[in-house]
Amino acid sequence: MNRGIQQYEVGDVFDDFLLIKSATKGVTSTGKPFMTIMLQDHTGDIEAKLWDSSPEDEKMYQPELIVRVTGDITSYRGKNQLKVKQIRLSNEQDSVSVHDFVETAPIPQEEMIEVITQAIFEMKNPNIQRLTRHLVKKHQKAFLDYPAATKNHHDFVSGLAFHVVSMLRLAKSIAQLYPSLDTDLLYAGVILHDLGKTRELSGPVAPSYTLEGNLLGHITMMVEEIKEAAQELGIEGEEVLILQHMVLSHHSKAEWGSPKPPLVREAEILHYIDNIDAKMNMMDRALSKVEPGEYTERVFPLENRAFYKPLTEKKNSVPTNM
Amino acid sequence: MNRGIQQYEVGDVFDDFLLIKSATKGVTSTGKPFMTIMLQDHTGDIEAKLWDSSPEDEKMYQPELIVRVTGDITSYRGKNQLKVKQIRLSNEQDSVSVHDFVETAPIPQEEMIEVITQAIFEMKNPNIQRLTRHLVKKHQKAFLDYPAATKNHHDFVSGLAFHVVSMLRLAKSIAQLYPSLDTDLLYAGVILHDLGKTRELSGPVAPSYTLEGNLLGHITMMVEEIKEAAQELGIEGEEVLILQHMVLSHHSKAEWGSPKPPLVREAEILHYIDNIDAKMNMMDRALSKVEPGEYTERVFPLENRAFYKPLTEKKNSVPTNM
Amino acid sequence: MNRGIQQYEVGDVFDDFLLIKSATKGVTSTGKPFMTIMLQDHTGDIEAKLWDSSPEDEKMYQPELIVRVTGDITSYRGKNQLKVKQIRLSNEQDSVSVHDFVETAPIPQEEMIEVITQAIFEMKNPNIQRLTRHLVKKHQKAFLDYPAATKNHHDFVSGLAFHVVSMLRLAKSIAQLYPSLDTDLLYAGVILHDLGKTRELSGPVAPSYTLEGNLLGHITMMVEEIKEAAQELGIEGEEVLILQHMVLSHHSKAEWGSPKPPLVREAEILHYIDNIDAKMNMMDRALSKVEPGEYTERVFPLENRAFYKPLTEKKNSVPTNM
Amino acid sequence: MNRGIQQYEVGDVFDDFLLIKSATKGVTSTGKPFMTIMLQDHTGDIEAKLWDSSPEDEKMYQPELIVRVTGDITSYRGKNQLKVKQIRLSNEQDSVSVHDFVETAPIPQEEMIEVITQAIFEMKNPNIQRLTRHLVKKHQKAFLDYPAATKNHHDFVSGLAFHVVSMLRLAKSIAQLYPSLDTDLLYAGVILHDLGKTRELSGPVAPSYTLEGNLLGHITMMVEEIKEAAQELGIEGEEVLILQHMVLSHHSKAEWGSPKPPLVREAEILHYIDNIDAKMNMMDRALSKVEPGEYTERVFPLENRAFYKPLTEKKNSVPTNM
Amino acid sequence: MNRGIQQYEVGDVFDDFLLIKSATKGVTSTGKPFMTIMLQDHTGDIEAKLWDSSPEDEKMYQPELIVRVTGDITSYRGKNQLKVKQIRLSNEQDSVSVHDFVETAPIPQEEMIEVITQAIFEMKNPNIQRLTRHLVKKHQKAFLDYPAATKNHHDFVSGLAFHVVSMLRLAKSIAQLYPSLDTDLLYAGVILHDLGKTRELSGPVAPSYTLEGNLLGHITMMVEEIKEAAQELGIEGEEVLILQHMVLSHHSKAEWGSPKPPLVREAEILHYIDNIDAKMNMMDRALSKVEPGEYTERVFPLENRAFYKPLTEKKNSVPTNM
Amino acid sequence: MNRGIQQYEVGDVFDDFLLIKSATKGVTSTGKPFMTIMLQDHTGDIEAKLWDSSPEDEKMYQPELIVRVTGDITSYRGKNQLKVKQIRLSNEQDSVSVHDFVETAPIPQEEMIEVITQAIFEMKNPNIQRLTRHLVKKHQKAFLDYPAATKNHHDFVSGLAFHVVSMLRLAKSIAQLYPSLDTDLLYAGVILHDLGKTRELSGPVAPSYTLEGNLLGHITMMVEEIKEAAQELGIEGEEVLILQHMVLSHHSKAEWGSPKPPLVREAEILHYIDNIDAKMNMMDRALSKVEPGEYTERVFPLENRAFYKPLTEKKNSVPTNM
Repeated sequence: MNRGIQQYEVGDVFDDFLLIKSATKGVTSTGKPFMTIMLQDHTGDIEAKLWDSSPEDEKMYQPELIVRVTGDITSYRGKNQLKVKQIRLSNEQDSVSVHDFVETAPIPQEEMIEVITQAIFEMKNPNIQRLTRHLVKKHQKAFLDYPAATKNHHDFVSGLAFHVVSMLRLAKSIAQLYPSLDTDLLYAGVILHDLGKTRELSGPVAPSYTLEGNLLGHITMMVEEIKEAAQELGIEGEEVLILQHMVLSHHSKAEWGSPKPPLVREAEILHYIDNIDAKMNMMDRALSKVEPGEYTERVFPLENRAFYKPLTEKKNSVPTNM
Repeated sequence: MNRGIQQYEVGDVFDDFLLIKSATKGVTSTGKPFMTIMLQDHTGDIEAKLWDSSPEDEKMYQPELIVRVTGDITSYRGKNQLKVKQIRLSNEQDSVSVHDFVETAPIPQEEMIEVITQAIFEMKNPNIQRLTRHLVKKHQKAFLDYPAATKNHHDFVSGLAFHVVSMLRLAKSIAQLYPSLDTDLLYAGVILHDLGKTRELSGPVAPSYTLEGNLLGHITMMVEEIKEAAQELGIEGEEVLILQHMVLSHHSKAEWGSPKPPLVREAEILHYIDNIDAKMNMMDRALSKVEPGEYTERVFPLENRAFYKPLTEKKNSVPTNM
Repeated sequence: MNRGIQQYEVGDVFDDFLLIKSATKGVTSTGKPFMTIMLQDHTGDIEAKLWDSSPEDEKMYQPELIVRVTGDITSYRGKNQLKVKQIRLSNEQDSVSVHDFVETAPIPQEEMIEVITQAIFEMKNPNIQRLTRHLVKKHQKAFLDYPAATKNHHDFVSGLAFHVVSMLRLAKSIAQLYPSLDTDLLYAGVILHDLGKTRELSGPVAPSYTLEGNLLGHITMMVEEIKEAAQELGIEGEEVLILQHMVLSHHSKAEWGSPKPPLVREAEILHYIDNIDAKMNMMDRALSKVEPGEYTERVFPLENRAFYKPLTEKKNSVPTNM
Repeated sequence: MNRGIQQYEVGDVFDDFLLIKSATKGVTSTGKPFMTIMLQDHTGDIEAKLWDSSPEDEKMYQPELIVRVTGDITSYRGKNQLKVKQIRLSNEQDSVSVHDFVETAPIPQEEMIEVITQAIFEMKNPNIQRLTRHLVKKHQKAFLDYPAATKNHHDFVSGLAFHVVSMLRLAKSIAQLYPSLDTDLLYAGVILHDLGKTRELSGPVAPSYTLEGNLLGHITMMVEEIKEAAQELGIEGEEVLILQHMVLSHHSKAEWGSPKPPLVREAEILHYIDNIDAKMNMMDRALSKVEPGEYTERVFPLENRAFYKPLTEKKNSVPTNM
Repeated sequence: MNRGIQQYEVGDVFDDFLLIKSATKGVTSTGKPFMTIMLQDHTGDIEAKLWDSSPEDEKMYQPELIVRVTGDITSYRGKNQLKVKQIRLSNEQDSVSVHDFVETAPIPQEEMIEVITQAIFEMKNPNIQRLTRHLVKKHQKAFLDYPAATKNHHDFVSGLAFHVVSMLRLAKSIAQLYPSLDTDLLYAGVILHDLGKTRELSGPVAPSYTLEGNLLGHITMMVEEIKEAAQELGIEGEEVLILQHMVLSHHSKAEWGSPKPPLVREAEILHYIDNIDAKMNMMDRALSKVEPGEYTERVFPLENRAFYKPLTEKKNSVPTNM
Repeated sequence: MNRGIQQYEVGDVFDDFLLIKSATKGVTSTGKPFMTIMLQDHTGDIEAKLWDSSPEDEKMYQPELIVRVTGDITSYRGKNQLKVKQIRLSNEQDSVSVHDFVETAPIPQEEMIEVITQAIFEMKNPNIQRLTRHLVKKHQKAFLDYPAATKNHHDFVSGLAFHVVSMLRLAKSIAQLYPSLDTDLLYAGVILHDLGKTRELSGPVAPSYTLEGNLLGHITMMVEEIKEAAQELGIEGEEVLILQHMVLSHHSKAEWGSPKPPLVREAEILHYIDNIDAKMNMMDRALSKVEPGEYTERVFPLENRAFYKPLTEKKNSVPTNM
């Protein structure tokens, strides 16, 4: 495959396929129509300007379609922009597929589901095990396809499962060092904590919030589903309540979306594991774009900090979680 | 009936029946055993001291039992105290009942359930109507018996239903002035908003928090029950989601326990109706204890304010919501 | 009358009279002069661009004048814009008046002053009654003309009186349900609470803040006026102080502009009545622009929420408070 | 005069006159009556216990009376306490006066009023001068007698005037260094800023809050009085508004009681001058009680800090503002 | 050894050696002297009352001495208390030592220093390695003896080193999962982050804050020492600055005591490792005192939460970090 | 010299020398290159647009160079802009120097160093005196050249020294009124408090933050230097610690960057002196640009307030601190 869009520089000429992420029309200050099209490949995205666009253009170029574009890389307010010279929809002969243009978790789905299945298999408490297995089965396709968020961290295809797999590994390590932790609760909490995202978000590519996502949120929906699953499976022990509590409290504070703070040891630790994995993902991503001795751009969900990459940074390290 | 305990003053001699609210044992600084017993009648409560108590006393005097007490009203740190001279358990000949000693809503249960039933009857949307009726039926006994809270406002037997009835009347008035409000949603929201308290609290008299009350809270539990009820009744429309949202958001802000703010007009107004009724209850109660020209004691849930009773206060007004 | 400006869509041609709200001059990035003119009718406003404007244009087109405009409706950053082709000042033959172009309360002034007068008439306490009547008389013209705010809620001609009238109706309803409330205080509080806006704002159309509005604020000015009125009328009772306190505390918290929190029952309820009416006005207005199943635009003073209009919304309901 | 009460230590025998600050009755845990009497002289106060008090005692020992007390200095929870052995009311032969027992500003009233009069005399703007002089005259007696607060800083007889005098000196120094400051505004702001305390507080000795103090606060009352004074004197310029604004904004932030922040340069500086003088007073007082190398007790209004007195502290320095 | 003080119940008779933690004298409400002595063994502490104490008692019973006590276990305000019948200082024949009465880290010092030395040994960057080794050497004795805090977590002899050892193990695990982390920085950060506590606190047993601890704090002092060490060792690279930054930022936010937030990846993770270990220590300790199905007492530094111990808790798990 | 850039108005033609502050390139919406160049003289700055710029232009016009520019003053979004017609680099014949184009403190460096030296000379404590003198000497050149901040207040050449000199005068005045203040500590605190800025910022003209400025901050660096200086000079008394504490705490609160609040009287007052001088500088600057009766632009670091300039403002007053 060719250079990713991320690698192009101002002055370069671009001529390749890209996926339309969004498309809006506008009118210049002198009254002429144009289109602003966000285009992406697996390495990133770029804003394209199609000047003097026709009503046909506006109908044709829709999100999730693939286009062949030729144009110049220019710069606008410090960001690259693509000034479109030629554009057409892809056709069958082009043999390109949406999957070639989206960022995806670095581990194959089969491997991820295996890690998750193994964690469930290791559970000793049959109630926790059956509940977790049931819910994973119920949402398996979306669980493996969805991102963990619309932006910020793990916002790519299969991001949710990848986040969970990383967290499971972290949970296992921590539980070995602190044997008082109940691994059944901890693993189940990790696996279920964000599963409600499969209902909160609209889909794996370019997700938006669903109505129930907006009005209830993924936490409330998952708490509800755990109860529902327990009823279906005829499970009645206190474990059901504890798992609901772990999902409910995993944002830790009311102002962050958890109406109850963690009141169980494993719930408290789940919150930390979630944080470490999300923050490592954001920091690694930002730091991978700069050289030692430089600062990253400001990372909004990390309190808008710009991180410094020390000169001591190991030159050939390859960050895992991108 | 005799004077209520609230009316006694320092120096009076007390000789009547009272209900034990709680009982704890202690040892004086000089090593002698004694009991601190909270006693109540329908007008209020008083701390009693039983000096030189015996192990038999400690076993005998348990919460929710009725005792005949003789003693002196003294004062300790600005509050009345009852120095017990004689005490014995009540027996059948005394013909006293727990119901004589607890504060209760000023409207009979039949009248309250009638108001609630009428509001349900007036609903035009069948889904909302069936859901609400189903949930009221399911919890009817507790709904009519429970307090609305363990303290602060409507913390008496049937307080929950009384609070709902007052709110329904307020909702009806407001909806007449603002016809854009959907009364089906508003009435259903009022009726269901605190129904989860019947699971969050342990019972109608001297309630504490249940385990699920602590780990999930009444809001989350009720959101869950609405979904469950909808499934049982085979209801699927958007109304289910809107009702869940109204319950979820009725505390208005994340830091007050609602993970989502009101995003529907009726949800926003529900929050205000809840507030007005709760605050009127607290202010009326505090102001009823003082004379015009005086301040009330500080009311903690009202930001610890001491309210002033103006001299213009109508002398013979009888506050409704006590 | 023709279609309101609010009803035009991109691509339409506009040719009608409009009122100039504001006018500023600019220079394009290529150095050419142009004017940005905010134009309005009674349904809303639109930004117009007059390209290649002359110095004469800049002198001629001033706020509060009426112009005849011809042009195309285009779109800029998701908002409609009017590209001016022809523009001229209106003249006598056009027989148009500023009043045709401003939004106005939906109830005539005579009806509003009647409601207010009636509430004053019903007061039993002569001190409260005389004070309130005196202050309403003193500011009557502005009271009936001014908006309740420069933006957000009731920001139209006669908005202040309309807000007060709605609040009076709400106060009456609530007082019937909670008889402990002193209606004299409550009505007087409602009528006077924002009367200081007639000095804080510069006028009924396109108001800005006056110097004393900026340095003292409407609350402080009204507290002062109550005292002054009492002295003029020779009134000395505690009622004067209570009314001052009600105005002073009606924003409820120090950080919202009230140096004292409500310390009198009616002051607390006044705050809630003010809030409900203002919020209903804002929500109704935002929701009237969208269809069931849609979200409103974000409403900044309502914590930037986008409200959802449920599908159950009664189709033919006509919101009152627009 | 004898040793002040502040100088006594545990184990000492006390036998001298003291002023009653407050007196309350109680009952011991074994049912016996006693009185808790706060007694003070010009150096401080002490809690006294009068065991087995009679009803006559309770009637006789009232606040603001002087008593002759004999007893032992003991300690209770880290504070000195006086166990009363003998007590009687003072009589004429004792020739003691309330003034001997209260803390008073270290400068005579004549000197203070002179400094204030001089500052007024130096004003060049006749409106500001007349307004200030009028208000000082109107409240002169209370201005010279009242404390600046009920506790924390300058909470002694003549504390208000003493605080103003110190602030005037500071204002003069600062204005010399920053000539852009308008001394007329600054001096008038200093003199008037807390004058409302003479209505907010009940009197010079053991002050409590008046009703209007509670419902309006000294800031609002003074803003009102400035307007009133201007009307009486027939003054109409912008100066009236600016002076009102200075008083209104001198607490600087809404959450500290100023509904408007300082919007005039002199108002901003007034806030700082007020702060420096109040804080110096509190720090000097706390530090005067400890030796170099020690920490003071925690000072609540200074964010509960315990200040350290460095070893370098000049040994013979005498703090001015006590 | 006998039962620990923690195991005694009300009604038991106590007769054993204990260490005096603190001792204060008091006077009863009837004027009699007594002593309150906090006594401890390795399992916890108890408040003892020595009634009718003599001046000799007060001189004799001083902190850090061992006493033989006989007395009854009573209860006061829900806590056990020891009513002393007989008490004497221990003597040589008793062969008891302070070390028998203090809580100590569960790992021997030799093992802890070995883990720390090994982590230093594994560092690849010679500057980081030399700096860390130098500072550990310089403070080695105190590092191995001091607690990590005066209360809350790891507040026992060798608590600081034990906390660091647990954190090193956690750091190693996490670094294996996230290879982008620079283990040299991370290990050095863990080892140095709280080393300043050896100057901030007064000693290993019953520590208080030193003057420089109060005026500068352990973070600032350690940042200073790193620079000093670098100068002594002639080290000049950026590593010095990065290590200083890691120590400076490890409390993460300004309001928690870090004037700079973490701006380097390893600094961010250091903060999380510190938190997890401290919180596990606090939760384990609180949960170890209750049975499954019970709540712990409220833990103040964990936002005053009471944690619930689920019934699923593995019965024979032995918490590591006590 | 000619009119300053600040005095030009829209429509004027500009033809003079200016200093380049920053220069960036862009592409117009129609794809043409241009440069945005910030130009300044000693009175202020202006944004210039160089349309159709060539690659040579982009290389040539770099920050800190002087150019001769001809062009028209236009307006863009309410700010003046310079549309460049001709531009060239200055050459030797032009005899212009960078110093002619930067704003500078209004007092010569010799006079400032004299004031500082005098304050050191007046110190009585030899340790404080030697430490202060040593640190001033060490950083003298930068101390006299650097600004006190990159923006907001005293952000001009020699701004740091000018700020210190003003503060010293203020400190002297205040210490005369409050003799309990230790002038040695106060003067040393004033002189040293911001000296770390000489390492935090990159230079006197157009300063940015250095790496250690970002990772440690000027406060931490100065605390460190005081220790270092004390070691070099062999000074060991408590004075070293107190001076470190004064620098550390001069931002007063943790959230403003001081990990410890002031715990010494002089540290508290240092914070106020710093504030008054900084705020006077910001207010004087903003007010000097407007006429009596007008508001200033909003001043961001003063909580975004717009200050009002009263009509009473003395007409011929010349603000000192510009």
